Amino acid sequence: MKHHRIHNFNAGPAALPAEVLEDVQQELIDFQGSGMSILEVSHRSRWFEDVLDDAIVRIKRLLQLGDRYEVLFLQGGASMQFCFVPMNLALEGKPVAYINTGTWSTKAIKEAEILGKDVRVIASSQDLEFTYIPQDFQVPTDSSYLHITSNNTIRGTQWRNFPQGVKAPLVSDMSSDIFSRMFDPTPFGLIYAGAQKNAGPAGVTLVILRKDMLDRTPANLPTMFKYSTYAEKKSMFNTPPCFAIYVVWKVVRWIEEKIGGMEKMQALNEKKAQLIYDYLDSQDFYRGTASPESRSKMNVTFRLHKQDLESLFISEALAHDLGGLKGHRSVGGCRASIYNAVSVESVETLIQFMKEFARRNA
Amino acid sequence: MKHHRIHNFNAGPAALPAEVLEDVQQELIDFQGSGMSILEVSHRSRWFEDVLDDAIVRIKRLLQLGDRYEVLFLQGGASMQFCFVPMNLALEGKPVAYINTGTWSTKAIKEAEILGKDVRVIASSQDLEFTYIPQDFQVPTDSSYLHITSNNTIRGTQWRNFPQGVKAPLVSDMSSDIFSRMFDPTPFGLIYAGAQKNAGPAGVTLVILRKDMLDRTPANLPTMFKYSTYAEKKSMFNTPPCFAIYVVWKVVRWIEEKIGGMEKMQALNEKKAQLIYDYLDSQDFYRGTASPESRSKMNVTFRLHKQDLESLFISEALAHDLGGLKGHRSVGGCRASIYNAVSVESVETLIQFMKEFARRNA
Repeated sequence: MKHHRIHNFNAGPAALPAEVLEDVQQELIDFQGSGMSILEVSHRSRWFEDVLDDAIVRIKRLLQLGDRYEVLFLQGGASMQFCFVPMNLALEGKPVAYINTGTWSTKAIKEAEILGKDVRVIASSQDLEFTYIPQDFQVPTDSSYLHITSNNTIRGTQWRNFPQGVKAPLVSDMSSDIFSRMFDPTPFGLIYAGAQKNAGPAGVTLVILRKDMLDRTPANLPTMFKYSTYAEKKSMFNTPPCFAIYVVWKVVRWIEEKIGGMEKMQALNEKKAQLIYDYLDSQDFYRGTASPESRSKMNVTFRLHKQDLESLFISEALAHDLGGLKGHRSVGGCRASIYNAVSVESVETLIQFMKEFARRNA
Repeated sequence: MKHHRIHNFNAGPAALPAEVLEDVQQELIDFQGSGMSILEVSHRSRWFEDVLDDAIVRIKRLLQLGDRYEVLFLQGGASMQFCFVPMNLALEGKPVAYINTGTWSTKAIKEAEILGKDVRVIASSQDLEFTYIPQDFQVPTDSSYLHITSNNTIRGTQWRNFPQGVKAPLVSDMSSDIFSRMFDPTPFGLIYAGAQKNAGPAGVTLVILRKDMLDRTPANLPTMFKYSTYAEKKSMFNTPPCFAIYVVWKVVRWIEEKIGGMEKMQALNEKKAQLIYDYLDSQDFYRGTASPESRSKMNVTFRLHKQDLESLFISEALAHDLGGLKGHRSVGGCRASIYNAVSVESVETLIQFMKEFARRNA
């Protein structure tokens, strides 16, 4: 059956691969001959445990994590991790360092402050409305960790290269660019990601934890706030968000088996970003808002030269089956989120529409 | 297409109504003409907001909550609420009262203790292995709240009537019997329920909060730990677990539109429970383990007279498409969970099988 599908440029929840959705639909009522939906099987059944185990194996392989890391599935989104990180990883009497690159970093910093930690914001791009990634900063040598936001969905900026030579473990919110590119995990003590951009649906948060970080867990934390609880019970101290984990499993399988792995995934993402940024730089009707050296390959933020045409642009685009192009409500303008599941063809269709819209409204 | 489906007696995640699963499957790829899956739409789109709003309206109507209560959708399961409740509702200098009716109550008590609250366990059925619901207890008059577990999945007991005349607001974990029967919400300050038994899939926790409880929220809690955060933003401070909420919406619609409301839902549940308990009481091959006056209408726990036949019973049942009959790993034996989505026909099929198995193994 052919379904009506739009080109989905949503910032998150965002597009999922069509093959994944078709698979989920096909097996929704009888999962692998169990006579039950994946929504109905026990989390302690082999049906679900096989899904969980294979998801972990594939995530470790895609990100080249090896045995030094735990792959955990939590709930509450990245916002919950803004609290969990300082609760679990701040060392007694030592500061926690943050770099502020926008709304999400700001929220992460706020929670560390509420928790009474010695917070050092060692760099910020707030002076230019978070349109760039700071390059100059000094990390206090006794820092518990250095927290960054690898990709900033609202202003469309991204760390191209992660901080080098930092003694403290890096902690990164990678909600919006995990699985989009290859990187060396070694400097990271912890990576977290709400799944609903590149990894799956809303409702599960990936936490990738270097095992030595578990030694830091304070003994007196409530059980459900401790990373060690999830690590000791393979994310099944209590019932995990089974369906969301199942879709994440489908997505990482898709990256490995349909796309062909992280290298090819990254190449596709670079191609899409180049297509759209090249077009933005070739004309004056639209203008990219992020500083070129800090541009995100996931979220392309732009304005129209005539800003009063922006709402017309967004609504006409939707009439052409190009959805999700409205900028974040806090900043306005336009944004095309081109996550893993957005095809090169969708990006080409968008650029074609942008050209026509510019011609008609010149 | 006809699917292979078993009779699903899982304790949770558990059976969902076939009509709900068929609906979800049918619209999985193109939700209501949006050209997107419900897994891909923005939580701030009208597609999702309409789902959320209608789910809240229906839940309020089913439980007769009126305007005094907030209906919230959180993450982390009931286990996370074991922490949230004392953090949010314990009053400075006043004790928190708990009645211990089993594993889940014990865990709730433990978290209140970790948080340093003045915990008073005012009654417990631990003396008889949690096979009954205590009826005699005194609640300290200055208690912040009285916490109970309305239904105990592991030992198969249930509060038939909730505590009367208690000055402190009642707080109940209703994970395993919400939407199974009618009750007066008035004495309850807070009700929470992991959805994965009667309300939907794993991955969302219903929190029903009497609005005056919000005044208790301590100012210095991390943002994501405060009930007020969820109440102020209609559960959308950050991205909620959209798909799980969507399935909850389908389930409450099913109760209203297919079953015909709570009164009929309760009558069906009573009928199923009576069928199986009447059979248990009519013979000696099987033996119900809960004290008769405290028997759960959701989880029927039983043993075989010859306990060495139990694993054969469970495996032969599965071969007859009767699944999920193994007792909780902490207590062994057998258990038939007969939640809302388990039909009278499934219960009759189970009883028929039990009779035949008893005859063959007499």
